Amino acid sequence: MAAVTAPKQDRSRATRQRLLEAAVSCLAEHGWAGSTVAVVAERAGVSRGAAQHHFPTREDLFTAAVEYVAEERSQALRALPARDREEAVAGIVALYTGPLFRAALQLWVAAAHEDQLRDRVAELEARVGRESHRIAVELLGADESRPGVRETVQGLLDMARGLGLATLLTDDTTRRERVVSQWARLVGEALDG
Amino acid sequence: MAAVTAPKQDRSRATRQRLLEAAVSCLAEHGWAGSTVAVVAERAGVSRGAAQHHFPTREDLFTAAVEYVAEERSQALRALPARDREEAVAGIVALYTGPLFRAALQLWVAAAHEDQLRDRVAELEARVGRESHRIAVELLGADESRPGVRETVQGLLDMARGLGLATLLTDDTTRRERVVSQWARLVGEALDG
Repeated sequence: MAAVTAPKQDRSRATRQRLLEAAVSCLAEHGWAGSTVAVVAERAGVSRGAAQHHFPTREDLFTAAVEYVAEERSQALRALPARDREEAVAGIVALYTGPLFRAALQLWVAAAHEDQLRDRVAELEARVGRESHRIAVELLGADESRPGVRETVQGLLDMARGLGLATLLTDDTTRRERVVSQWARLVGEALDG
Repeated sequence: MAAVTAPKQDRSRATRQRLLEAAVSCLAEHGWAGSTVAVVAERAGVSRGAAQHHFPTREDLFTAAVEYVAEERSQALRALPARDREEAVAGIVALYTGPLFRAALQLWVAAAHEDQLRDRVAELEARVGRESHRIAVELLGADESRPGVRETVQGLLDMARGLGLATLLTDDTTRRERVVSQWARLVGEALDG
């Protein structure tokens, strides 16, 4: 039995993964209003029936997609070798400037006025936020038992999110690099001082 | 002549202002997809023809609305008496946590995938961003001729924007106050040190 079902499970997993990746690109490029299960199924080269088998509702598909890619990104960041503070801050900021952040932002902003999304996205955001915080603490070698350190790291993550938002419409890489370099210094002093 | 035309101009200005305020609330509550000239005209109690006289296109209305309210907020912030660093940082962060920021965010995120909005919103954002920067420098008493000070202030504004984004779905006032208090200290040390 196992020999027969395993390839089927593999195919099913591959289909699911293609749908999730197509959903993230679709959200990032077209926003929530332009993102439906049908559009994503076509993009992924999957039948609509198969897409609905994996994700019964539009909300299921897009929240799962953002969560899936967020996990992939987190794992990649955790797997990087130890590095200095400025590289750590740059790595954290990079979490918020790619297509995943664009997709998450579209979902997040839609959730502000779509009741069926709101609770799910708030819950997803809290989960992803806690994970980002854990990774940041690790990469920075921050000791959260010291007063102010937790809030220093939180503010840094808020700054990274704001930088990601600024990058949405215009490429401000030069400005971002300068801010990252200066804030890495401030964070370093706060963590060591 | 002046006596006859003045009240007409006043009425016209009042109509314009009602439309701008209704447009900001509409964007904040319903997002770009749910925001049209017709919806705003009805909300403002103005005929659709009058609305179109003031703002020929949907893009005209909503970019003007965000700019108008941003100017109102800036003036209010500038008019506040001199204060300590923590109050200054709290005042700057407050710029990004109200209905104006919600409205601007909806416009901004829509502009990422709507070509007719993109350039106008990027330009508007740059203008409002420069003004926020000037106000922040003033409130903080920051000397931008010193190295790193400009980037410290920019990072603080990015952090304020990120905190605003975090407030979109859940009320995290307690967390925000702690982050503001800690970063007011770090920014203060960076500006004075």
